[in-house]
Amino acid sequence: MGLDQIRDLISRAAYIDGHRRQVAKTCEGKVLATLFYEPSTRTRLSFETAMLRLGGQVIGFAGAQVSSASKGETISDTLKVVSNYADLVAIRHPKEGAALVAARAASVPVINAGDGGHMHPTQTLADLATIQARFGKLTGLTVGLCGDLTFGRTVHSLVETLSRFGGVRFVLISPDELRCPKYVLDRIDASPSCEYEQTSDLLSVIGDLDVLYMTRVQKERFFNEDDYLRLCDTYILDKDKLAHAKPSMAVLHPLPRVNEIAQEVDQDPRAAYFQQVKEGMLVRMALEAALLGDELPGYQAWKEVEA
Amino acid sequence: MGLDQIRDLISRAAYIDGHRRQVAKTCEGKVLATLFYEPSTRTRLSFETAMLRLGGQVIGFAGAQVSSASKGETISDTLKVVSNYADLVAIRHPKEGAALVAARAASVPVINAGDGGHMHPTQTLADLATIQARFGKLTGLTVGLCGDLTFGRTVHSLVETLSRFGGVRFVLISPDELRCPKYVLDRIDASPSCEYEQTSDLLSVIGDLDVLYMTRVQKERFFNEDDYLRLCDTYILDKDKLAHAKPSMAVLHPLPRVNEIAQEVDQDPRAAYFQQVKEGMLVRMALEAALLGDELPGYQAWKEVEA
Amino acid sequence: MGLDQIRDLISRAAYIDGHRRQVAKTCEGKVLATLFYEPSTRTRLSFETAMLRLGGQVIGFAGAQVSSASKGETISDTLKVVSNYADLVAIRHPKEGAALVAARAASVPVINAGDGGHMHPTQTLADLATIQARFGKLTGLTVGLCGDLTFGRTVHSLVETLSRFGGVRFVLISPDELRCPKYVLDRIDASPSCEYEQTSDLLSVIGDLDVLYMTRVQKERFFNEDDYLRLCDTYILDKDKLAHAKPSMAVLHPLPRVNEIAQEVDQDPRAAYFQQVKEGMLVRMALEAALLGDELPGYQAWKEVEA
Repeated sequence: MGLDQIRDLISRAAYIDGHRRQVAKTCEGKVLATLFYEPSTRTRLSFETAMLRLGGQVIGFAGAQVSSASKGETISDTLKVVSNYADLVAIRHPKEGAALVAARAASVPVINAGDGGHMHPTQTLADLATIQARFGKLTGLTVGLCGDLTFGRTVHSLVETLSRFGGVRFVLISPDELRCPKYVLDRIDASPSCEYEQTSDLLSVIGDLDVLYMTRVQKERFFNEDDYLRLCDTYILDKDKLAHAKPSMAVLHPLPRVNEIAQEVDQDPRAAYFQQVKEGMLVRMALEAALLGDELPGYQAWKEVEA
Repeated sequence: MGLDQIRDLISRAAYIDGHRRQVAKTCEGKVLATLFYEPSTRTRLSFETAMLRLGGQVIGFAGAQVSSASKGETISDTLKVVSNYADLVAIRHPKEGAALVAARAASVPVINAGDGGHMHPTQTLADLATIQARFGKLTGLTVGLCGDLTFGRTVHSLVETLSRFGGVRFVLISPDELRCPKYVLDRIDASPSCEYEQTSDLLSVIGDLDVLYMTRVQKERFFNEDDYLRLCDTYILDKDKLAHAKPSMAVLHPLPRVNEIAQEVDQDPRAAYFQQVKEGMLVRMALEAALLGDELPGYQAWKEVEA
Repeated sequence: MGLDQIRDLISRAAYIDGHRRQVAKTCEGKVLATLFYEPSTRTRLSFETAMLRLGGQVIGFAGAQVSSASKGETISDTLKVVSNYADLVAIRHPKEGAALVAARAASVPVINAGDGGHMHPTQTLADLATIQARFGKLTGLTVGLCGDLTFGRTVHSLVETLSRFGGVRFVLISPDELRCPKYVLDRIDASPSCEYEQTSDLLSVIGDLDVLYMTRVQKERFFNEDDYLRLCDTYILDKDKLAHAKPSMAVLHPLPRVNEIAQEVDQDPRAAYFQQVKEGMLVRMALEAALLGDELPGYQAWKEVEA
C-alpha cells in the first residue's frame, strides 16, 4: 500500500469519526464476507461493525464453523464460491500467504485480516491512525516499542511503515532474547531520516518517548515455562513507570493484553489503546468503502476545507 | 429494576406487538453486541431478533467462537473494546457477577442475559409479560410453581418480582428434595399481601391455580442417576392432569422442556409457553429501545388512549 | 414441488440476476432463521446472502453453536420457538425426515437445506437453473452424470426431476461399485420420453454430452482406504478429456470438489460449476421471496415481455 493511500485512508477515518450519520448508508446493498479460518473475535467484530455502520451487510464463518475446508476444499475454490455471494472479503488464516492465494482466486476485493504470525495490515493502519489522531502527524516522533520485538509482527509492520514515512526515531525496548530481527533493523537503516537505539531498560528511556507501543509476550512463543515466567513481567507498564513519561505520550497496544499494562493505567489520558480499537474500526470503514468504490458522502468537500 | 420500569417495559412490549411495522426502524443505525461466553441459542436469538426487528444490527460471538478470552483477556477489557463497536451489549456468562463486571467496564449499556445458574432478568420480564397478556394484571392471582424449585433460578426470580408487586398466592409444588430455598420463602413473607403453601402433590392443587409455572428437572443438578430417574417424571403435566385445572389457567415454562409437559398439552389453549417466547422477544425489544434512548414511534399517544 | 413451480422459480431467478437493485428491498422487515444442526458453510452462506440481498435479515446457528438440542430439546420445540422470531426457516439436519418434522411444527414456512445424506432440494433447483441458463431449456438434452452415482443424492434428485420434465437422455458414468440405484433407474424408465445408458468409461461418451455433472467420490463412503484410492482418481476431468467434448457442453459439480475436476478446467468456458453457485443463490432468493409472499418488483411486467 502506497503512503498516499495510507494517508488517504487515515484522513477518511477521521472524517468518518465526525460524520457517522452521513456515512451510515454508504455501502447499502453491499455484502462483506468474513472468512475466519482461525478465531480472532476482536478483528472479526471490527470488520463486521465497520461494514454494518456503513449500511452494508455481513456473512461469514469463524473458527469452529469452518466446514467445507474439512471436506478438502481449497482456499481458491472457497473464494471463487464466496465471490458469488459477497462484494468484499476479509480473510483470516493461520498460514502465511493464504490471503494472497485468496486474492488471486477471488473476483471481488480481498482484505488480509491476518495470515501467519498474526500479521495484518489493518492493525498497522489502526496504529497509524491513532498516532495521527494524537499528534496530528506521523513524523518527527520518538517511537518506543516494548516487549516481544522478535515475534511481534504488529511491531515489525509498524516499524516498516513508519520508516517509509520517515523522520522517526525508534527506541527498541526488549529483553536480549526478544530483540528486533535484523531485517526489520535494516528497514530503519534504509530510511535516511530514521534512526534507532536498542535497550533492555524501559525506565531509562520512557521520558524520551512520544509513543510507547507495548506488546504482549505470548506464552506460546516460548519453549519452556521458566523463560516465559522470567520475562513476561519484565516490561510491565504501571503508574510508577508512567510518572517518568511525557504528559503527551501515547501508550498503544495491539490487544489483547495480559498483564503488560496494569489496569491502573487505563484511567491515564496517555492510555491510547482503547482509542486504537476505535481507530481500527474507522480505518476499516474507510478501507471497506474504498474497496467497494463507494464514496463517503461529504468527504471531498470536508477535505478541501481541512486542507 | 423498579416496578414502574417493569410495568413500563411490559406496556411497551404490548404496544410493539400490535405495531410491528411502526417500530421497525426505531433503532436504525444502532448495533447490538451479543457476547455469549456460553451457548444459549434461544436467548441469543431472542435478543438478536429483537434488535433486527427494531431496524438495528447485530454483532457478536457464541460459545465456541470465544477466542480472545482464551488469550487471557479479561471481561473488562473485552467490554472496553466492544464499547467501541456496539451501542448496546447483551452478555451471557457462566460466572455469577460477570454481567456486573461487564457493566462497570463498558461505556455503553449492558444487559445481563444470564450469569451463573442461568439467572437472567429478561426471562422474568418475559414471564411477567405473559401473565399480563393472559390476565391483564400481575396481582390477585394464584401462581403455582412446579418442579425443581431448589435450583431453578427462573422460579426464584419470578417469585421475588411477583412478591414485590404483591397480592399473589404462591403454591410451591415440588418433591421434598427440591423445595424452594428459605431465602425465597422469606421474600414472600416480607410482602404483606402475599402468601404461600408448599406441597408435593400437583394434582391436589392444580384446580386452584391461575398460573402453573412448570420447570425442567435438570439432570446435571443430581448427584446420581437413580435420584434423577425417580424424580424427573414425577411432575409431568399431561391432558389428564390438565382436566382438573381451570379453563383460564395459563401454563408457563422457561424452556427448553424435556418431558415435564407432554406434547399433547401444546394444543390446549392454556399452554402459554410458546407465547412466552414471543413475549420474551417483545420485552427485549422494549428494553433494547429504552436503553438505546430510542422512543417507540406512536407509543405515547397509544398509551394515553389505553390509560 | 410441481414442475410449474420449478419453472416459475427458475424464471424468477433469471429476473433477479438482471434486476438486483430493483429487488434489493423485496423482503425488508423480514427475518430468515438458518438452523444448521450440521455445518455446511456454502449452503448456509447461500441462504443468508439470498435473504440479505432481498433486504431481509438473518438469525441462526451453525454446528458448534447448537446448544438447546444438547439440553434435550426436540426439533419440534425448537421450531415452535423460532417461529416466534423468524418469518422463514432454512433447516439443515443430519437425520432424514428432520425437515418434515420441522415443517409440521413450525408456524412459518420451512425450507429443507439438506437432511440425511446431504439431499437438499435447493441444490437441484440450482442445477436446473444452471442448465436453463446455459441452454435455454431443460429438455432435449443428453445429460451425463459421472462419479459416485450410488451415494450421490444430488445426482438422484437431479435425475428424478429432469425425468419429470422429460425428453432427457441420461448417460450414467461410474465404476461398477458405484452405480446408480435401481429406484433411480426406475424413475427414468417411468418417463416415456427419457432413456439412459450405463458405462464405466467417461472418455468414450464425453463427446455425446450436453451436460456433464461431475460428483465427488466421498472418502467416508468407502469401507477401506484401498478401494477409495483405486477409484477416486478414475473419473477426473481434465483438459485432455475435455478436448473430446462438445464446445457447448456444460460441466456442473455440486461442490466442494476435491480433485475430480482439475483446476485447469476452471478457465474453460464449459466450466459451469461456479456459475452454479451463483444460480443457487438466485433460486434461493426466488424461493425465499415466494415463501414470504413478497412479489419481486417489476417481475410480472418483465415476464410478459419475455413470454
